[in-house]
Amino acid sequence: MIKVGVVGATGYSGAKLVQLLLNHSEVEIVYLGSKSYKGSHLNDIYKNFLPNENLLLKSEPLIEVSKLCDVVFLALPSKVAKNMVTQEVLDNTLIIDLGADFRLETKQAYETWYKAEAADKEILDQAVYGLTDIYKDKVKSTKLIANPGCYTTCSILTLSPLVKYDLIDINSIIIDAKSGVTGAGKSLNFNSLYCEVNENFKAYGITTHRHTPEIEQELSKLANKDITIQFTPHLVPMNRGILATCYAKLKKDVSDEQIDSAYRTFYKDCDYINYLGQGKIVETKYVKDTNRIDISFHHDTRTNNIIALGAIDNLVKGASGQAIENMNIYFGFNQYHGLTKFSSTPL
Amino acid sequence: MIKVGVVGATGYSGAKLVQLLLNHSEVEIVYLGSKSYKGSHLNDIYKNFLPNENLLLKSEPLIEVSKLCDVVFLALPSKVAKNMVTQEVLDNTLIIDLGADFRLETKQAYETWYKAEAADKEILDQAVYGLTDIYKDKVKSTKLIANPGCYTTCSILTLSPLVKYDLIDINSIIIDAKSGVTGAGKSLNFNSLYCEVNENFKAYGITTHRHTPEIEQELSKLANKDITIQFTPHLVPMNRGILATCYAKLKKDVSDEQIDSAYRTFYKDCDYINYLGQGKIVETKYVKDTNRIDISFHHDTRTNNIIALGAIDNLVKGASGQAIENMNIYFGFNQYHGLTKFSSTPL
Amino acid sequence: MIKVGVVGATGYSGAKLVQLLLNHSEVEIVYLGSKSYKGSHLNDIYKNFLPNENLLLKSEPLIEVSKLCDVVFLALPSKVAKNMVTQEVLDNTLIIDLGADFRLETKQAYETWYKAEAADKEILDQAVYGLTDIYKDKVKSTKLIANPGCYTTCSILTLSPLVKYDLIDINSIIIDAKSGVTGAGKSLNFNSLYCEVNENFKAYGITTHRHTPEIEQELSKLANKDITIQFTPHLVPMNRGILATCYAKLKKDVSDEQIDSAYRTFYKDCDYINYLGQGKIVETKYVKDTNRIDISFHHDTRTNNIIALGAIDNLVKGASGQAIENMNIYFGFNQYHGLTKFSSTPL
Amino acid sequence: MIKVGVVGATGYSGAKLVQLLLNHSEVEIVYLGSKSYKGSHLNDIYKNFLPNENLLLKSEPLIEVSKLCDVVFLALPSKVAKNMVTQEVLDNTLIIDLGADFRLETKQAYETWYKAEAADKEILDQAVYGLTDIYKDKVKSTKLIANPGCYTTCSILTLSPLVKYDLIDINSIIIDAKSGVTGAGKSLNFNSLYCEVNENFKAYGITTHRHTPEIEQELSKLANKDITIQFTPHLVPMNRGILATCYAKLKKDVSDEQIDSAYRTFYKDCDYINYLGQGKIVETKYVKDTNRIDISFHHDTRTNNIIALGAIDNLVKGASGQAIENMNIYFGFNQYHGLTKFSSTPL
Repeated sequence: MIKVGVVGATGYSGAKLVQLLLNHSEVEIVYLGSKSYKGSHLNDIYKNFLPNENLLLKSEPLIEVSKLCDVVFLALPSKVAKNMVTQEVLDNTLIIDLGADFRLETKQAYETWYKAEAADKEILDQAVYGLTDIYKDKVKSTKLIANPGCYTTCSILTLSPLVKYDLIDINSIIIDAKSGVTGAGKSLNFNSLYCEVNENFKAYGITTHRHTPEIEQELSKLANKDITIQFTPHLVPMNRGILATCYAKLKKDVSDEQIDSAYRTFYKDCDYINYLGQGKIVETKYVKDTNRIDISFHHDTRTNNIIALGAIDNLVKGASGQAIENMNIYFGFNQYHGLTKFSSTPL
Repeated sequence: MIKVGVVGATGYSGAKLVQLLLNHSEVEIVYLGSKSYKGSHLNDIYKNFLPNENLLLKSEPLIEVSKLCDVVFLALPSKVAKNMVTQEVLDNTLIIDLGADFRLETKQAYETWYKAEAADKEILDQAVYGLTDIYKDKVKSTKLIANPGCYTTCSILTLSPLVKYDLIDINSIIIDAKSGVTGAGKSLNFNSLYCEVNENFKAYGITTHRHTPEIEQELSKLANKDITIQFTPHLVPMNRGILATCYAKLKKDVSDEQIDSAYRTFYKDCDYINYLGQGKIVETKYVKDTNRIDISFHHDTRTNNIIALGAIDNLVKGASGQAIENMNIYFGFNQYHGLTKFSSTPL
Repeated sequence: MIKVGVVGATGYSGAKLVQLLLNHSEVEIVYLGSKSYKGSHLNDIYKNFLPNENLLLKSEPLIEVSKLCDVVFLALPSKVAKNMVTQEVLDNTLIIDLGADFRLETKQAYETWYKAEAADKEILDQAVYGLTDIYKDKVKSTKLIANPGCYTTCSILTLSPLVKYDLIDINSIIIDAKSGVTGAGKSLNFNSLYCEVNENFKAYGITTHRHTPEIEQELSKLANKDITIQFTPHLVPMNRGILATCYAKLKKDVSDEQIDSAYRTFYKDCDYINYLGQGKIVETKYVKDTNRIDISFHHDTRTNNIIALGAIDNLVKGASGQAIENMNIYFGFNQYHGLTKFSSTPL
Repeated sequence: MIKVGVVGATGYSGAKLVQLLLNHSEVEIVYLGSKSYKGSHLNDIYKNFLPNENLLLKSEPLIEVSKLCDVVFLALPSKVAKNMVTQEVLDNTLIIDLGADFRLETKQAYETWYKAEAADKEILDQAVYGLTDIYKDKVKSTKLIANPGCYTTCSILTLSPLVKYDLIDINSIIIDAKSGVTGAGKSLNFNSLYCEVNENFKAYGITTHRHTPEIEQELSKLANKDITIQFTPHLVPMNRGILATCYAKLKKDVSDEQIDSAYRTFYKDCDYINYLGQGKIVETKYVKDTNRIDISFHHDTRTNNIIALGAIDNLVKGASGQAIENMNIYFGFNQYHGLTKFSSTPL
């Protein structure tokens, strides 16, 4: 039984994380943090939780929280965590940051895309990018796990085998991604009002979305070459789910069997990567509330493009579920303990 | 470990039932029936399920199925089950019927509202109305459980304490109910097309809905008097959930404390009845994918009306979840084994 | 050609009003007011409008606006208009207030329900309740029209003939109303976020909603007796539309023909009241973007209740469309000029 | 005043067409055809229409209809119209076909993509592709107008200036398109049920969608070279609207000004093409129920890709509205008569 804390428990990812932790038999929640709702209980805000004294929200400095917990999850807006995580904190506890402040490996990349000063280099250098299916081993030996973004998780997992096994022209990658509205978080914003989102479809953050450098960093490492991608997110009028439609030019004479084999080989030890095979479609509803990713590919022989498709639940595999995977691995639990592989709803 | 079968596994209630049974540690699924999809696997139709050889769909006569199973769930359209359930079937196995054919206690009531011949009297007389929170004891001693309808479950549970403790004028009951679209099942029907339902709100079945006599039968038994109610269902553009807004004239000088106490007393042993108290609101999203009912009441001193509100998930407490409760009780498992009390999603 | 101004042009009702006015051949928009967006153009905010220099948003005192305009529409939050409308303003121009500040005829009623001081009695006494189908004649002879609320319009029009012709027990009226989300306006509020509203259904304002006294005031005038009603609003996950399901006990021996005749007689001169007759259903989608109300009734002989149903578009008949009707009548245009009777979409 | 007929009036496009024709001052509807609903009135099916004797649905042979009408619109499923349109029909009347049977110029292309015999060559050769903004002149001199598909209209109009002015690598075009559910028509299909579509996002028809050859045909004509594109449609949980996100590699040293100028020049005479300029976003809600297309572009200097975005209402500009444009031009009315340029709703 380990002691856990969640800072930023009232956002959508934070609340989902608490729900998963409550169902996890190896953890005890000892701290829930919220600046705005200090003194309330999480079940006052999310009435799906039943009244529970342990869901009291507090607002303590991270250094104090770190003394109470074996692991502290940070589910905070960008640019907040980097000023909170100190060496002293890391000496006390494992930090799993669901935000973006420790994901980019160089200060320069962060500063270019986030237009703000990056975290201290000494801290940043300790961060491990927590894309669990790929960095399982590294996750064990750090005190600072930078949990990947939602678009990022979906895009990288969908494209990695193609990049790793050199099957595509790495200069041709286009990721046309679509997200449900929880992806935007629970902040008060005209663009998140029901009547603004409902019955509408649009792209946003075109050429400038901050998940771009994260995807490029990781694919470049796999390719051992600098990769620049085109990434375009869109907003779908639904609560949850991400679909990434990924396009790339196949290298000459790459066969369908090679592609199929690349996926199977690359993910042979990854139980929650549900590779469906060639010619299948993936749908966000089938991964809802699971920690699964569904992946398929199509090969257009007319254009010699591959269209690879990935679908995840942005709040689970794209945030809280993957954070739990990282915790599980770090503490030696089964990687998927407390997570579900098939959707709790047929709808 | 008991052996279970589900006949009609590909409808929304059937598939939800299978999902719950797969997570239930005391059962083994030995038969899944579907006329239309015989030979396919349930996971081909509902891709939230992962491939699983045990999900093969068959189409055998009920008598054969009854020989294989300790309990067989029927999730069929109205007017089908009554012709399938024979004494021989009941001698072999427990039948839990999620349909309407055995819910009304008299042949006459069935024939009036369903415009069809009722089930044989001998069979009908063996049926126990499976509103678990009220008929826990009776459920144990029958081979035929008539699982209540979704609107019915929500309405009866919301009104029962008021009727039982004689707090309202029983001639004044109005139930204005609202349901998500899964309530209509998965049949091909213009009225269930996305573009017909989306961005629309309407009432239907006004004065004629078949859950009316079911509610009247049960409330009458509690009151020991014949009760006639006004029941009006509406269709909400959402997948799941039922909200019942129930109105009644309070008897003279009934105090808020009396009402509050009625709810607390009546449901004191019912863990999954989440009585929120006076002046609270209930919302369908907070009970989604749980076997919970959320109940509250308001007393309007200007009109002396009580407005009692209940919310359930129509597929769980209103169908498959309650069917599992009945199975659990019959076989001596914990009543709530395999069911959840708080929503798996904060959304 | 008359000169019009709209104060509060950027809310949902205000913007809808501007759209209707742009299509009205007898008006010229000379002023659009917005405190928050002063200096922008309305088409920057609502990109369905094409760029148009006339849509520049200003923020001038009402007294100045009143000098420019033959009519000024106020589309403001509660409790704002009452402090802006002075005798001097009314001497200059016709005011059509889409808000609630002048709808209740007594200061006391306002103060009870709105918990704030009412408008000055002298101003209030000049206000005419602008339920056009009923007060056509009075509207012509005032400088201050209090445009009715959305729930109110739908409820009163659905019930008026029953009350007027003494067909129901006036102490038994229950209005269970449902509204799309535009009814809540365009303010930043957690309860209006997409993910909070979507896939959910709930009641709100139970026993306390401020449209209650407005409905009671108007029905009481028709009945020549004090009427107290039960009014319960609900939020539907859709953009637009109101459905009112109205229940009342019929008086003894009232025939269906009498009811039918009451509707036909009462509304014989009202082109946009689309009375569908007995046994029909009404749906919000069919009145979307029209100035129509669809009305039907059902008589339950088991309970002797009448269930009367009304459906309107809350932004049109329930706000901006009816405001245009009032303007048309005041200035001697055809009552329906610039308004549509059938929905522009089949969906 | 011309006489018009609509064959297939009860589908979504057909009903929208009737609604537009009813508002068009230069036409008289003399025939509405429906096999399934013969004898009913269109207003029985779409209750947004008020009762109207002229909306009686009949089922006559096309040759008889052609004798009554100056123009007959066909709004039928694929593979039906090709067997109905004969030379005799064309001698009698103008045919505007909203289906696909006459859009592809060669029999071979049709047979490859539609897996069925194409229309007779003599008839096919008379067909003019009715993409009004581009083929205004040709439309005047034919008796058979093949109205373009919805995805097609949006994609071609978004890409045409780039192709025409040789600004992009024509082998690099990727169109990632998204459509509301009316695009699937009003047929009974599990995939169109509310609960199947709602809260879900998926791609479909990957590499095989039949609008692909139509887009290729038209872009190839503009480029004077064979163009092969990648086209991937997706289904959005909303009623109406198409967004096309179009990617292409820019040719070397193409400046933003050149691109901007290409759009302005190409569409200088097209009133309803709402080119928004560089860096803007387009949203489907802003073109809803209009005959407008909103277009913008982004230039990613990191990848040298252009991302061009187009948004239309699939039922209007993508079907019935453009059909009206073609009719208007053929009969010498103003091209946009009876159509709207700005959305009737701010939402």
